[in-house]
Amino acid sequence: MRQLPEPSRKRLVQLAKVLEQHRCGEALTLTSEKLGELTGWTQHTIRRDISHLGIRCGSPNGYPADTLLAAIYETLGIAAEQERRHACCIVGLGRLGQAFLSGELFSASPFVLAAGFDKNVNRIETLKTAFPLYPQSRMRGVIAQGAIEYALLTTEDADAPAAARQLIDCGIKGIVNYTAAVLPRGEQTLIENVSPITALTNMLR
Amino acid sequence: MRQLPEPSRKRLVQLAKVLEQHRCGEALTLTSEKLGELTGWTQHTIRRDISHLGIRCGSPNGYPADTLLAAIYETLGIAAEQERRHACCIVGLGRLGQAFLSGELFSASPFVLAAGFDKNVNRIETLKTAFPLYPQSRMRGVIAQGAIEYALLTTEDADAPAAARQLIDCGIKGIVNYTAAVLPRGEQTLIENVSPITALTNMLR
Repeated sequence: MRQLPEPSRKRLVQLAKVLEQHRCGEALTLTSEKLGELTGWTQHTIRRDISHLGIRCGSPNGYPADTLLAAIYETLGIAAEQERRHACCIVGLGRLGQAFLSGELFSASPFVLAAGFDKNVNRIETLKTAFPLYPQSRMRGVIAQGAIEYALLTTEDADAPAAARQLIDCGIKGIVNYTAAVLPRGEQTLIENVSPITALTNMLR
Repeated sequence: MRQLPEPSRKRLVQLAKVLEQHRCGEALTLTSEKLGELTGWTQHTIRRDISHLGIRCGSPNGYPADTLLAAIYETLGIAAEQERRHACCIVGLGRLGQAFLSGELFSASPFVLAAGFDKNVNRIETLKTAFPLYPQSRMRGVIAQGAIEYALLTTEDADAPAAARQLIDCGIKGIVNYTAAVLPRGEQTLIENVSPITALTNMLR
């Protein structure tokens, strides 16, 4: 897979969403000017991001939407595994975790929510979900058996580092950290820190 | 303010959190090796990030924690405005928005939650919060009067682009987008996309 600069990768994820929305519309080709309007990025940025895809499909009429979308999928590693959806789990089923339990959240995505974990056994027994819930102590077995690759971390802040350590020990590929805690790192595990304070601080300037 | 590469900026935000936690401990200096253990980054990465701070405080004993933290605050633009906290609002008070209403979330941060908005007036009247809630139609006046700078966007996906447009028209500095919608961009408005699907897709490789 190509080595993409991280900001380009993130913009291409957004660009794919814009193209998905437009595929249902009438536009078969989109100019970089139009893509600029839809995303807010400069045409220069858009052309440079697209140059990472290693395709030549631009014309005075613009980029064919389908070709561009397929190239982004391939570069992001989605296309090759399109039949297979990536299994995810959610760790921490308090108010925040529960807000992410809606089944629709993961529909039309390359991910599927396959399991939930919580320290609190009462919570596990009372919540109604479309996928099974387990006590956190059973994490290792469930993750291995379900081939779970990614986790959303929505525990209390104080419980987050220990839960992340467990996930890392299970060989999880990536953790989306919705807590304010700084997590331990594993060599194989990516971490996206997306708590409100972290996201706001990232924007301060 | 110095132009920082985005990945360095994000790592420095995390590094500041690690240092804040350690200030309460006994370590007055931290070697890049120790910082590597605490964050999971290589010593090379850590030294390069610290080099952006424009300070010379490394010694064989490591970096003085307080000096390093102050330099990070200054570079991120937190220190200069330490007395002043940045006013934020939350738009969308459904399950996800409500999960972020806890007062503790923003304590010990340079941000303060100053207002909440929702289309649904019933919701505004029944929720109990430490700050005032308003119907979304009053956004412009409330944001101007409260000098609100940042927003957490937690509406339904379908309502998100229109809400973002309103926020951009109000001149908001940054939006943390917890919805799956692709938002319109404003010239002055930064956007951090942190929905589960976006964050997971960013990690796919």
